[in-house]
Amino acid sequence: MAQWVRFEHQGKSGFGQVHDEQVAVYSGELFASPQPTGETINLAEITLDTPCTPSKMIAMVDNFHALVTKLEHAVPAEPLYFLKGNNSFLAANQVIRTPKSYAGKIVYEGELGIVIGKRCHEASEAEAAEAIFGYTCINDVTAIEILNRDPGYPQWTRSKSFDTFGVFGPYIATDIDPSKLVIKTILNDQERQNYPVADMIFPPAKLVSLISQDVPLEAGDIIACGTSVGVGSMKPGSQVSIVIEGVGRLDNRFE
Amino acid sequence: MAQWVRFEHQGKSGFGQVHDEQVAVYSGELFASPQPTGETINLAEITLDTPCTPSKMIAMVDNFHALVTKLEHAVPAEPLYFLKGNNSFLAANQVIRTPKSYAGKIVYEGELGIVIGKRCHEASEAEAAEAIFGYTCINDVTAIEILNRDPGYPQWTRSKSFDTFGVFGPYIATDIDPSKLVIKTILNDQERQNYPVADMIFPPAKLVSLISQDVPLEAGDIIACGTSVGVGSMKPGSQVSIVIEGVGRLDNRFE
Repeated sequence: MAQWVRFEHQGKSGFGQVHDEQVAVYSGELFASPQPTGETINLAEITLDTPCTPSKMIAMVDNFHALVTKLEHAVPAEPLYFLKGNNSFLAANQVIRTPKSYAGKIVYEGELGIVIGKRCHEASEAEAAEAIFGYTCINDVTAIEILNRDPGYPQWTRSKSFDTFGVFGPYIATDIDPSKLVIKTILNDQERQNYPVADMIFPPAKLVSLISQDVPLEAGDIIACGTSVGVGSMKPGSQVSIVIEGVGRLDNRFE
Repeated sequence: MAQWVRFEHQGKSGFGQVHDEQVAVYSGELFASPQPTGETINLAEITLDTPCTPSKMIAMVDNFHALVTKLEHAVPAEPLYFLKGNNSFLAANQVIRTPKSYAGKIVYEGELGIVIGKRCHEASEAEAAEAIFGYTCINDVTAIEILNRDPGYPQWTRSKSFDTFGVFGPYIATDIDPSKLVIKTILNDQERQNYPVADMIFPPAKLVSLISQDVPLEAGDIIACGTSVGVGSMKPGSQVSIVIEGVGRLDNRFE
């Protein structure tokens, strides 16, 4: 298992692997055989960046049995998704901000993120599994009062694409079996979400295969696997963390 | 009025202004004071590219009174939109293709496209008007049988984001008053759509201002203003053209 980070250090961008509070710096391209430089930097000395720069983030709706049951929705026959705006991307430890134009509730949604490692289009499930580089933590922040305020048109992309609403990181964890993972959301030291990947309706390789029938997925693209029960709102000053043991802990403050 | 194109010619990319079947080639950046090189190329010798490379295409729903009336929808209180996947972008004269995974009807939607010329965030209507670089023709191609096949979740982005479904061009026309424009769709020499921008619910400057409250718009971003009545399906072999006098004529074959 490796945990990949991108970072800023002394005004320069870099990337590498995290080991024991140190970053082993790599050169080249993350998704194309990067090479260790031999340099190490203390984790405490870097500023975390998002671990990759997706060309798109595809975000799932109704992908956990527990949530679908709670909402009294039908179990979907195919993956249901929207695009989260690229402007929304935010790294660990950065501040999630209330948009100037919105005064309603803002909710966290803790999710598992699939990170694509190589181009994947019209892929079988086996090919899709090969195209998955690793996993990251996601907070799919949502201006929830926008979602259903139009009587005829649910505003998924809009409610979820404000600047700072697409939080992911801190790491991409590779060589792990996602089926045993558990997603937790901690709000101000209280656990608010705790649900297993095992409850996912379309699990990672199947999901990537199915979505790749619609659109080509590129290296660095992210699929946010959808959330489950326990979504709730954040108050200004809140600390919110998405914790997936074996993947990482994504900490942010909300203002 | 200027009509800007991007093109391929003898294996090289370029851009310039169209005058009388000639392209006057420019250097620099389209959105940052480009300079004429003095070179001209016959229009017949170039391959048209999309006239810009948007970081995002925001596409409107229910933005014309005639269509809203026909569908018996309420007139929306705010712009309703989704993101069209960047993978879908296609230039004039290229082939719109049926996805391998879909066997249902595919429809054209002729639309006016607004092209942003400079970054625009939380802009007033006057600032938004200043941020509009020009206008282009759009064919917002849609796998219409996907849109409402899930009983609970309308699949806007998915049905409209297959490769080749985001057609725009051939030009960006600048220094024109959009309020007098008329959008026509011609399918195999038959006029199928003919509707005026004057019927738009949120006209261009207001639309850009309102959307910019949600997300920052970047130079080259496109807002597809939504379609009106007359949407219909295409058969393989169809020729489809979106014609906006004063803006351009966007021709494509559908297979």
